[in-house]
Amino acid sequence: MKNFKIDPQLAGDNTLIGELLCSQVLLMNNKKVPWFVLVPKVGDVSEIYELDKNTQQLLLEDINTISFFIKQHFEVDKLNVAAIGNIVKQLHVHVVGRNKNDCAWPGVVWGMQEHQAYTQEDIDKIVCMFDLYKQDNS
Amino acid sequence: MKNFKIDPQLAGDNTLIGELLCSQVLLMNNKKVPWFVLVPKVGDVSEIYELDKNTQQLLLEDINTISFFIKQHFEVDKLNVAAIGNIVKQLHVHVVGRNKNDCAWPGVVWGMQEHQAYTQEDIDKIVCMFDLYKQDNS
Repeated sequence: MKNFKIDPQLAGDNTLIGELLCSQVLLMNNKKVPWFVLVPKVGDVSEIYELDKNTQQLLLEDINTISFFIKQHFEVDKLNVAAIGNIVKQLHVHVVGRNKNDCAWPGVVWGMQEHQAYTQEDIDKIVCMFDLYKQDNS
Repeated sequence: MKNFKIDPQLAGDNTLIGELLCSQVLLMNNKKVPWFVLVPKVGDVSEIYELDKNTQQLLLEDINTISFFIKQHFEVDKLNVAAIGNIVKQLHVHVVGRNKNDCAWPGVVWGMQEHQAYTQEDIDKIVCMFDLYKQDNS
């Protein structure tokens, strides 16, 4: 966790909803798609291969966990899992539930213009679902 | 490897350049960016979480290997690593070397219009570099 501090742009675009084994879990503030972002709590890392093997392993488990969570709670035809980071360098992994009827399908969500902010009630509901999911699977 | 057969669209857009621990390694036929695709040799799988734990581990190692290869042989500012699969369902992981001067930067490469096919000579050179890299790192 040394030197870990979340990038201000990531923090601004997203809401922190919890933690997993090695990652903070963020919710992208766009109701158009269920879009989560895992940020491994490691300082000064921008690529997956820069993580030590143990943290890579934990990140993989976190990706599995959030994938199952999304599949369970949203109507999802496909998951998109991606570490891009061309704009925000801090390593972060997008895990996005995609549906054939969503506004960007079959394109990717990065760069899409459609946006609808969550209400605080929406966010509270997702945080609650996430907490329950973690309890049920711990 | 049971039931594994590469998707015809993946095979058509890419050239097979070799194999790693669990994946076939494809080169996207677009010289504009160094764009590789790992296809785990497992049938009927479209999501990372559907792989058994051991194959997930091997896939992670294959991602590391191709990442180092790209960093070593191309001028790369950032890697983009992504399992998308909205169009081709067969699980495949893009590992793309990005450069601040490439034609899609800082956007993503999926959906980009710019295209320049490799010559056979280009492909032979990349296959040769990949074989040597594997020998040096085995």
